[in-house]
Amino acid sequence: MIAELVTIGDEILIGQTVDTNSAWMAKQLNAIGVDVGQITSIRDARPHILQTLKEAESRGDLILMTGGLGPTKDDITKHVLCEYFQTELVRDPEVLERIENFFRSRGRDVLETNRQQADLPKSCTILDNFVGTASGMWFEKNGKVFVSMPGVPYEMKHLMENQVLPRIKNKFTLPFIVHHTIMTEGVGESFLAELVKDWENSLVEEDIKIAYLPSPGMVKVRLSAYGVDEAVLKEKISRKAKELEELIPNYIFGENDESVEESIADLLKSSGKTVATAESCTGGYLAHLLTSVAGSSKYFLGSFITYSNMSKVKQLGVSAESLEAHGAVSRDVVEQMVMNAREKLSSDFALATSGVAGPDGGTDEKPVGTVWIAIANKEGVYSKKFLFEKNRERNIHRSALAAISLLRRAISGQLKIGLK
Amino acid sequence: MIAELVTIGDEILIGQTVDTNSAWMAKQLNAIGVDVGQITSIRDARPHILQTLKEAESRGDLILMTGGLGPTKDDITKHVLCEYFQTELVRDPEVLERIENFFRSRGRDVLETNRQQADLPKSCTILDNFVGTASGMWFEKNGKVFVSMPGVPYEMKHLMENQVLPRIKNKFTLPFIVHHTIMTEGVGESFLAELVKDWENSLVEEDIKIAYLPSPGMVKVRLSAYGVDEAVLKEKISRKAKELEELIPNYIFGENDESVEESIADLLKSSGKTVATAESCTGGYLAHLLTSVAGSSKYFLGSFITYSNMSKVKQLGVSAESLEAHGAVSRDVVEQMVMNAREKLSSDFALATSGVAGPDGGTDEKPVGTVWIAIANKEGVYSKKFLFEKNRERNIHRSALAAISLLRRAISGQLKIGLK
Repeated sequence: MIAELVTIGDEILIGQTVDTNSAWMAKQLNAIGVDVGQITSIRDARPHILQTLKEAESRGDLILMTGGLGPTKDDITKHVLCEYFQTELVRDPEVLERIENFFRSRGRDVLETNRQQADLPKSCTILDNFVGTASGMWFEKNGKVFVSMPGVPYEMKHLMENQVLPRIKNKFTLPFIVHHTIMTEGVGESFLAELVKDWENSLVEEDIKIAYLPSPGMVKVRLSAYGVDEAVLKEKISRKAKELEELIPNYIFGENDESVEESIADLLKSSGKTVATAESCTGGYLAHLLTSVAGSSKYFLGSFITYSNMSKVKQLGVSAESLEAHGAVSRDVVEQMVMNAREKLSSDFALATSGVAGPDGGTDEKPVGTVWIAIANKEGVYSKKFLFEKNRERNIHRSALAAISLLRRAISGQLKIGLK
Repeated sequence: MIAELVTIGDEILIGQTVDTNSAWMAKQLNAIGVDVGQITSIRDARPHILQTLKEAESRGDLILMTGGLGPTKDDITKHVLCEYFQTELVRDPEVLERIENFFRSRGRDVLETNRQQADLPKSCTILDNFVGTASGMWFEKNGKVFVSMPGVPYEMKHLMENQVLPRIKNKFTLPFIVHHTIMTEGVGESFLAELVKDWENSLVEEDIKIAYLPSPGMVKVRLSAYGVDEAVLKEKISRKAKELEELIPNYIFGENDESVEESIADLLKSSGKTVATAESCTGGYLAHLLTSVAGSSKYFLGSFITYSNMSKVKQLGVSAESLEAHGAVSRDVVEQMVMNAREKLSSDFALATSGVAGPDGGTDEKPVGTVWIAIANKEGVYSKKFLFEKNRERNIHRSALAAISLLRRAISGQLKIGLK
């Protein structure tokens, strides 16, 4: 069962937009046992769309298109689809009503170009888009399926998750693929591979594939097995995953692409603990991660983003003498930040960051990437100095992940916060 | 002059890697006047590579391939290229020497699989790779050019910049392409198109192409012109861009893919103004955007992330009576937040957000997506209620962008902040 992905629109071909949609879709398809044979990006031009559809049809069983469905004049995909499937556009009253409501509920006028988005090919099954105005379209032709979706990632994902993937599973007989991903942090890829070498060798006889997927601050370990008996696949994958968990318990923070913030949210909720933050170099990113999870008001109380020495003094009562004597990026200052933040908000835990994110501000003694991170509870405080990278964005990201890592270890009892 | 980009390898097709190479290459090609007609990602499999080369040759003048040149067994591209160009592999002594030095200088053994990377097609021009072990290959056939490069982004960029782009400029007579992108916010795609309809119609006679590129909270408008006289293209593009700027000055925040946060950073730096934030529903994301730009300590003083009623009282001195009477998501509370934050940090401006990000916490009166946003300076305060979406992530993102939009309007004098 082979799928072809086709993206339509100039923005990818002129390099203005990176095609993240195709990677996301490929991952979803892979997870349900569909192989992606080719990804093609073309312009919003009639002959090229027609030729590409014909070629994709000759190779694939399922052709998923994104893009080219906006209300403006430069989008012609819908008309070309009518030509390809020898059908015509008809205005769908239900879609029209939804589009009109979409604009009215936002207090905006409905224009004729908006109404035209309710003009859809007669022969397709309309896939309702509840988060935008461009409907998805599902065509069937000689046992092959063609789907057209808007290119806006959010709308495409909504349609894929709620309409396209369930319909694909229904329409095609798919092999079973069982994946299990173990999320690790605090250990590099090659060191991790060395640690689990014997276990990794044992995967061969079980016919399980392993992939190490590193990203800043973490390494995902993905196990995959393919076959006809789902129960057998699940049993061996979960047995091997359990073995790994017993091998390196301290490096594992979650599973199956659970993010660091979702994992810590679960831990905070189940333990009933609350947290506050005091941030210098992370500039609000740590608070953002902690509050990006629904229901975070249960455990997140507040944060002090103290981006200047003055605000460290005013917002958190850090001593001006300490700032003068040790600088903002120091154990002394980050520990005052974390303890004062915890006291001010009466939280169970507090986290603090102070570092040189870069690109400027580095010195020989404190080069770009130097970051102090601290955690406090009512018993005391623990702080640690890190040396990350030369890149500002990655330094901010890794600092926030390292702070969350300390919190995870403290809640789970791996890290003892001493009296001070 | 049309180019085709072909990426070879499984990692993109299973969604493990996002194809950032193609976007980078497309941008470089575009800048020297080469149109990219199609981007194709395929597996490292002989028949598929041969078929793709044939199709690409039928459409393009220049075919740039990346990937499939590693030393491991699954990389067969080089052999398929020999078949396609009816030539054979020969070991190149100079390349062999460079490969051997590459490993020796790193204190590593040279394996036979490494030496085999010096086996290159007889008929190609070898493109020296000084940062890795896979050489680039330049083939010519019936006036068309085929280039094969490694898929490692760093090596591909090295070869493109030092070898491929200079050779393309030398080999082909290229037209000029001039793009100009105008960044707008505060207006939807279709409403914007309606506003500028007459102007848009006037682009046809100038032979200028327009594209609307919407993303959450903003719409980019891209103008493109192709031709032989660069000065003529630049003149007409900048004249038309200026007309647009005069038509909708209040919706434009920047140009040429400048982000909202870079644009406000420039404005804050050039005006010498400082800013502080007080955030409830954005949970630190607004501070994160403002501090994601290098040098933000020049204008960003600090932030209070007050995620609970208690912290609004403790951190910002919001009146408990107001919270009780009007709720946290109210004009009264957001205005106290913004004014108190500005006073506490003595900043020129302060921004505040308080809303229902979702998915829970909505009521009939204040549904999910209801957000109050306020701005204050020393003259007073201005606040506005927004109704965004049902999605938490997008509500947080759009709230932060809307707050920055108010700041931009206030600094540029479009928004008068009244006395209070």
